[in-house]
Amino acid sequence: MDYEKIFADAIEAIKNEGRYRVFADIKRKRGDFPRATRYEGSDNTRTITVWCSNDYLGMGQHSSVLSAMHEALDETGAGAGGTRNIGGTNHYHVLLEKELSDLHGKEEALLFTSGYISNEATLSTLGKLLPGCIIYSDALNHASMIQGIRNSGAERRIFRHNDLEHLEELLQADDPTAPKLIAFESVYSMDGDIAPIEEICDLADKYQAMTYLDEVHAVGMYGPRGGGISERDGLADRITVIEGTLGKAFGIMGGYITASKQLIDVIRSYASGFIFTTALSPVLAAGALASVKHLKASALERDSQQERAENLKSRMRQAGLPLMESESHIVPLFVGDPVLCKTVSDILLDEYCIYVQPINYPTVPKGKERLRFTPGPDHNDAMMDALIEALLDVWTRLGLKKMVA
Amino acid sequence: MDYEKIFADAIEAIKNEGRYRVFADIKRKRGDFPRATRYEGSDNTRTITVWCSNDYLGMGQHSSVLSAMHEALDETGAGAGGTRNIGGTNHYHVLLEKELSDLHGKEEALLFTSGYISNEATLSTLGKLLPGCIIYSDALNHASMIQGIRNSGAERRIFRHNDLEHLEELLQADDPTAPKLIAFESVYSMDGDIAPIEEICDLADKYQAMTYLDEVHAVGMYGPRGGGISERDGLADRITVIEGTLGKAFGIMGGYITASKQLIDVIRSYASGFIFTTALSPVLAAGALASVKHLKASALERDSQQERAENLKSRMRQAGLPLMESESHIVPLFVGDPVLCKTVSDILLDEYCIYVQPINYPTVPKGKERLRFTPGPDHNDAMMDALIEALLDVWTRLGLKKMVA
Repeated sequence: MDYEKIFADAIEAIKNEGRYRVFADIKRKRGDFPRATRYEGSDNTRTITVWCSNDYLGMGQHSSVLSAMHEALDETGAGAGGTRNIGGTNHYHVLLEKELSDLHGKEEALLFTSGYISNEATLSTLGKLLPGCIIYSDALNHASMIQGIRNSGAERRIFRHNDLEHLEELLQADDPTAPKLIAFESVYSMDGDIAPIEEICDLADKYQAMTYLDEVHAVGMYGPRGGGISERDGLADRITVIEGTLGKAFGIMGGYITASKQLIDVIRSYASGFIFTTALSPVLAAGALASVKHLKASALERDSQQERAENLKSRMRQAGLPLMESESHIVPLFVGDPVLCKTVSDILLDEYCIYVQPINYPTVPKGKERLRFTPGPDHNDAMMDALIEALLDVWTRLGLKKMVA
Repeated sequence: MDYEKIFADAIEAIKNEGRYRVFADIKRKRGDFPRATRYEGSDNTRTITVWCSNDYLGMGQHSSVLSAMHEALDETGAGAGGTRNIGGTNHYHVLLEKELSDLHGKEEALLFTSGYISNEATLSTLGKLLPGCIIYSDALNHASMIQGIRNSGAERRIFRHNDLEHLEELLQADDPTAPKLIAFESVYSMDGDIAPIEEICDLADKYQAMTYLDEVHAVGMYGPRGGGISERDGLADRITVIEGTLGKAFGIMGGYITASKQLIDVIRSYASGFIFTTALSPVLAAGALASVKHLKASALERDSQQERAENLKSRMRQAGLPLMESESHIVPLFVGDPVLCKTVSDILLDEYCIYVQPINYPTVPKGKERLRFTPGPDHNDAMMDALIEALLDVWTRLGLKKMVA
């Protein structure tokens, strides 16, 4: 049995589709975001501008976050030293969970080592605990939600992206007495569009379903205190579970859910992905605590991000570049081919020191390949000028499409 | 549909079995391990001694680790800012992966956000990529391995714990041309016994199976450079995949695998739990890098841990306490009842400021409930005296068994 041959063939298949991934080796420059050092092998380095970070507000270099982390390191050390149950609950976890439940107006919160595992663990456990449960899942839900729903063993219905009629059709067709859960996101990260949360909650009420809302691309960035789209639209109390991340706008790493005391207790007590893993480093928890607190009180970063995103979108429109219209801070630029998409990205990085990763299948559907820009408070006008100029050069050189197909 | 009622019933069921978990809220004192501050509500705190940490060697407070983390924070900030593919690969990840592949003598390594997800993602992906694959899994494998094997959809055979005859019986009964993988651990964390690695490798050769070895309770602690039991016994080159953690003896958080270049590339390219998640914080990667480097060069911590573990075992034997004999640094003390186990632990914590978590089902089988001590370099003789005295008091007060049943 030639196992290596099977692995080599699997890699070859990806290469043939033009979607083999090469990771850019960088070190972001604290105090100088979005600048980073790029390592090019044999100790060559260059300074680049990062345009594709999910540290959307630059909180990863915020002084209050860094101070809190330095302090926690000196006070309690590097790691938690155990699972939450076996010696690993650090006081910073307790404080952060209180802060997060307050952020979303829920009774309690629960931390996970990542947003991925918070989705996987919560959805799989809910599906298992509710006999005969049916989970209704938006067609564009994140891989971690799909994984959790699959692992739950529950019946699964996939409704067309943000399509209320289709969702109702599916709800209506099922046994009215069966437990039901509607799982969806607020901001979809690749197109930047936003779910009709209120209407989905209305359907949930009508068909007695629970609601599970992934707000990872919204927390910190929307709502008067950064509680996400559900806070902005005053709908948090209508959502059963709000899931969020500490790894994007909050600038650190880790994930969480907030919900009723009872629901949190049941996930805490039954979810394998929560129970059997070393707890989040207290240093990260301390940093996240400072970041959440800061963004609860300050709208500066949010407002600036929105202005920067609008600014970049308008520059792209004026330059005749194929902007894919988005309702959020996410700025997708259409390419429509995996090989070209990677080529544009390579040229931008190698020749213009501009870093924006190609987004190819399976992250987006085939034919919808794109560059995805995430401008934030630290991207200044000069950087935008340089970006638009570089894009126009490359678009001309490669004869790329000027229209979104 | 009264969802809250269903959740309340699920919690009630756990409470009735005496295995409802209450997390001790602590803050370890950097520079003073194994001492920690215990928070008891309404701002009461007390200093306790932690006897159940998996920061086995106290590396979470080691000066080289903390300096590296302070430096990384100042240099590159708090978080990675993206998935490994989209802006999140930090130079510290690249350096740490090199260090880890060197530690195990493998071509390459791959980081994950936790040991849990490294097992889940790798095993589930291997099972999916090899058509008709059969996975042979030790009966006492960790929850994360079980999860990964389940999610792989591969055929699963469970062999009795460390039972070579049973393993061979199962291998023999299957199609000789089917792809096969034997998944097991080196040190089993609850009993502290060690797998017959060489004999399992012989069987793997005979039946053309790959081998997957979880070394999370051994890396840093066994082998001349901390490469685990597979290094100690000179067997690393016979193992296909060695999996480890940065969250136990290395004192931080995160997980990894090491293997051939081809195998790492295939997991990197196909595993959902690797691809779709924010990369490990560069601060953690920097700390882990320092920790692995230190323990490669220094045997001081390992030797001291072994001496401390032997010392505690011998004290327990002399005191007539029901030590469950173990071949490793893990010191389990038999109780055999979930309610009593929790009661002992509560009394030790409340009255003696000694913290050791009760280990109940599902972490161990029903009837095998225990206290699990993890003495390390920082547990001095005075702490051992106080521990044995407290245990004898409580054993007498509660009339606990003196024999392992």
